[in-house]
Amino acid sequence: MRQWNSWGDSRVSMAVHPNARVFLEELLGPGTPLKDALLSDVLATVPPSRLPEHPLISTDAEVRVRHARGQSLPDWLAMRSGRFELFPDGVALPTSSAEVAELLALAKQHDWTVIPYGGGTSVVGHINPLPDSRPVLTLSLARLNHLINLDRGSQLATIGAGASGPQLEALLKPHGYTLGHFPQSFELSTLGGWIASRSSGQQSLQYGRIEQLFAGGRVETLNGSLVMPTLPASSAGPDIREIILGSEGRFGVITEATVRISRLPEREEFRVYFLPDFASAEAAVREIAQQKLPLSMLRVSNSEETRTQLILAGHKLAIASLEKVLSWRGAGEGKCMLTVGFTGSNDKVRYALLEVGRLLKQYDAVPTGKTLGTRWLQNRYKAPYLREALWKLGYAVDTLETAIDWPKVTSYTRDVEQALRDGLSAEKESVLAFSHLSHLYAQGSSIYTTYAFRVGRSYEDTLARWNKLKAAASKEIVRHGGTISHQHGVGRDHAPYLPAEKGEQGMAVLRALANHFDADKRLNPGKLLID
Amino acid sequence: MRQWNSWGDSRVSMAVHPNARVFLEELLGPGTPLKDALLSDVLATVPPSRLPEHPLISTDAEVRVRHARGQSLPDWLAMRSGRFELFPDGVALPTSSAEVAELLALAKQHDWTVIPYGGGTSVVGHINPLPDSRPVLTLSLARLNHLINLDRGSQLATIGAGASGPQLEALLKPHGYTLGHFPQSFELSTLGGWIASRSSGQQSLQYGRIEQLFAGGRVETLNGSLVMPTLPASSAGPDIREIILGSEGRFGVITEATVRISRLPEREEFRVYFLPDFASAEAAVREIAQQKLPLSMLRVSNSEETRTQLILAGHKLAIASLEKVLSWRGAGEGKCMLTVGFTGSNDKVRYALLEVGRLLKQYDAVPTGKTLGTRWLQNRYKAPYLREALWKLGYAVDTLETAIDWPKVTSYTRDVEQALRDGLSAEKESVLAFSHLSHLYAQGSSIYTTYAFRVGRSYEDTLARWNKLKAAASKEIVRHGGTISHQHGVGRDHAPYLPAEKGEQGMAVLRALANHFDADKRLNPGKLLID
Repeated sequence: MRQWNSWGDSRVSMAVHPNARVFLEELLGPGTPLKDALLSDVLATVPPSRLPEHPLISTDAEVRVRHARGQSLPDWLAMRSGRFELFPDGVALPTSSAEVAELLALAKQHDWTVIPYGGGTSVVGHINPLPDSRPVLTLSLARLNHLINLDRGSQLATIGAGASGPQLEALLKPHGYTLGHFPQSFELSTLGGWIASRSSGQQSLQYGRIEQLFAGGRVETLNGSLVMPTLPASSAGPDIREIILGSEGRFGVITEATVRISRLPEREEFRVYFLPDFASAEAAVREIAQQKLPLSMLRVSNSEETRTQLILAGHKLAIASLEKVLSWRGAGEGKCMLTVGFTGSNDKVRYALLEVGRLLKQYDAVPTGKTLGTRWLQNRYKAPYLREALWKLGYAVDTLETAIDWPKVTSYTRDVEQALRDGLSAEKESVLAFSHLSHLYAQGSSIYTTYAFRVGRSYEDTLARWNKLKAAASKEIVRHGGTISHQHGVGRDHAPYLPAEKGEQGMAVLRALANHFDADKRLNPGKLLID
Repeated sequence: MRQWNSWGDSRVSMAVHPNARVFLEELLGPGTPLKDALLSDVLATVPPSRLPEHPLISTDAEVRVRHARGQSLPDWLAMRSGRFELFPDGVALPTSSAEVAELLALAKQHDWTVIPYGGGTSVVGHINPLPDSRPVLTLSLARLNHLINLDRGSQLATIGAGASGPQLEALLKPHGYTLGHFPQSFELSTLGGWIASRSSGQQSLQYGRIEQLFAGGRVETLNGSLVMPTLPASSAGPDIREIILGSEGRFGVITEATVRISRLPEREEFRVYFLPDFASAEAAVREIAQQKLPLSMLRVSNSEETRTQLILAGHKLAIASLEKVLSWRGAGEGKCMLTVGFTGSNDKVRYALLEVGRLLKQYDAVPTGKTLGTRWLQNRYKAPYLREALWKLGYAVDTLETAIDWPKVTSYTRDVEQALRDGLSAEKESVLAFSHLSHLYAQGSSIYTTYAFRVGRSYEDTLARWNKLKAAASKEIVRHGGTISHQHGVGRDHAPYLPAEKGEQGMAVLRALANHFDADKRLNPGKLLID
């Protein structure tokens, strides 16, 4: 069963290794967990619904609780404390595009606002109701999750936008295909959500971002149905798909999407190499990206992340002997871990292995084979579960990301980590921060930073700490000229920083589009653009 | 010197081989060329300018003639006949973004319309003045053609939007880089024009379309300057670049663009293979595209084009002996010519050669080595010159293209060629038509169709023939669900067919954008959208 106040499946849990606990206690001080609220307590706070009875709409209190918040740290604090503040007035679970259109017509007629809802995995406040005098209907796409069409010749699949990662891959696998879109939220996030927030999967180096995978589809808007045909390419005017990508529910509800699929690979493996320091690691992966070697993933942890990951991994003895060997071969104190994904035909993987091996040698990389890579693969979706385990020890964990041109990667990474480490100095609290590059481009890289801090004495106190850290990090992103988000979208939390990226005229274009689709600010108001 | 009534440089000319002439005469009947107008005659028809004197604006008659038309067949007929009908009232040649902004401000103040002008190579009427009570200013970017910044780390170059293909490559080459964007119009077309019309180069398989190359830039709009930052990727809302791409001068004037460049390749070669028939050729290239083998070009002529190309090539004896060998090896009557581009490091080219060779063998391809490929490379930009040579023999030649999903490629190609061949049956005229696939995607392919017909007794008659053929072909594109243009844009000629591609809601989005940027329809009115 999906947890009501946390990530994922209640049957899955991650243990924090005793070494990791010692490490955190030494660095951040001993944690004192905050008390979780009970679901029954929260249910008692749900106000009566302002929506009328309707066969497509549930106003059940628990359903409303379960659709009220996403997975950002503020959402977590709201859920764990039981102080949700706002709930949708009802949740609709339509089963067709026609029913979605019907619900939008009702919303228009009766003056409701509508929040499109995919997997509820937003980490930036996409699906949270905001104060509004109008009733709020959350429109879940969960039941639009079927395979509608499979075109083998063009390698296109049309799928309901509510299909989650596992559902979607299960629809394709029997036919011999994969979408290849594996964000960390894969277990719960949905096709429509990926499109609405411009998601990027862990193997985007091979399969592309959702922008490259989204070939066309159907969006129900307040003006009518917007249908985008599939074309391999077109020079006929601006691309309407690119207006829907990243629209975050403001322009309409994505109900069906046609995506570009790939044949299941003959061979796939993940190998780990260690490089002596971040400068050599960065130079090596930049070279690989600019040579466009055919890999499915490049993921390089900086020294801080490498050190932390090895400690968190436990297996003290095994790690010590690994470190001994690495050190002997030149990857000592400042070493950086690089995970490389090889995916495709046997020929292609052989070629890529040879080329990568040859190139990495020039940067003094030490190969360690497949063991650590296989381990990464097994745990690729587990980080959100670890967050809960750490929470129970009294530590809060959050992540943030940007993408930036190559010359700024090092200085940005240094500065954002420093800003986080210093962010709670007034509180005399330490902050753990480390980063990795995980989506690499010829032009630059994404930088994904994880930070951990002790929860405060209260939920309010903890939220205040997060607010400080998030603001400090966001300022560094803006100052260095990175994007406010590489893969999570804008939602509410990043909206104040969007103008720095889009500029005055860019923002005016987005507002003009919002006004065209929804002059009454009925669809997901306050998200993407601050209304 | 650039020709005033034709393509390209007056010093370059292509000869029509006697064999080709015989072939055309047998197929279409003997041609009777129409009489060309003289420049002096045309100059006499240029009306007084409605624009005031201004240091940035030339109202010289010849300058206005030279900026009045593009390179579509209707443009040709207008230029050759001397019946231009409309001229811009003046031509501005600003040298900076600030001067472009100044000119736009003047246009607003004095109620002029403005046509942004790159290389004047449009084949769909992009830069032609339309009847308007307001004075028409053509704004040429020709003087904004400098290298503004080169960022080696990110492989980004910022270049004035008026740089032509050769100018742009000459700016990059000394630094060891190439943009890799080589449309057939390369000699004259410009960076800004490529962006405004969503251009695609002959080696897009490797370098990407202009959409993938355009990283950011500056657009002067009537609302102010729109500056798009360079980011490797972003999930922060809809991508403003994608709204400028294909905007065809309607939303603003692109003055600077930052593009993603590549290191000059170590090795490049083009090899020709022959396949027994179109079915096997199409299956082979689809497989190559879907396996994403690292090639820079795939170009497969159908049987009709292969036959015609071999005849047009002349060298009767050499071709006969080639055909004998091919036939003996299984590529006889219906054979199709495939040109494959290999570009990159020595290692990569070796790998690609091996993989392509192995794969093509399964489709009974006959390799012929590099001779024909090198010949293709030498002539890659010459087709527009051939058009003039054929014109002088009394034949009109035009091309059109679409892109379509794989399952529709064969039926569309058959039907569009048949529609062209039958298009002048009322006139009892034959039409030569043949096609190739030249931009291949995992999802589908572009189809580029060339057609030739005898000019009529008069220019009017010839234009009427073209109108019939163009309409017949466009209808086939729409009927089969292809894009109305893969690489030439919409302009005026394709505008009636745009709604079929974008749909009612898609068109409404484009109109809303046009209204946002230019409610007075001052920028390139009537293009892209019929006002």
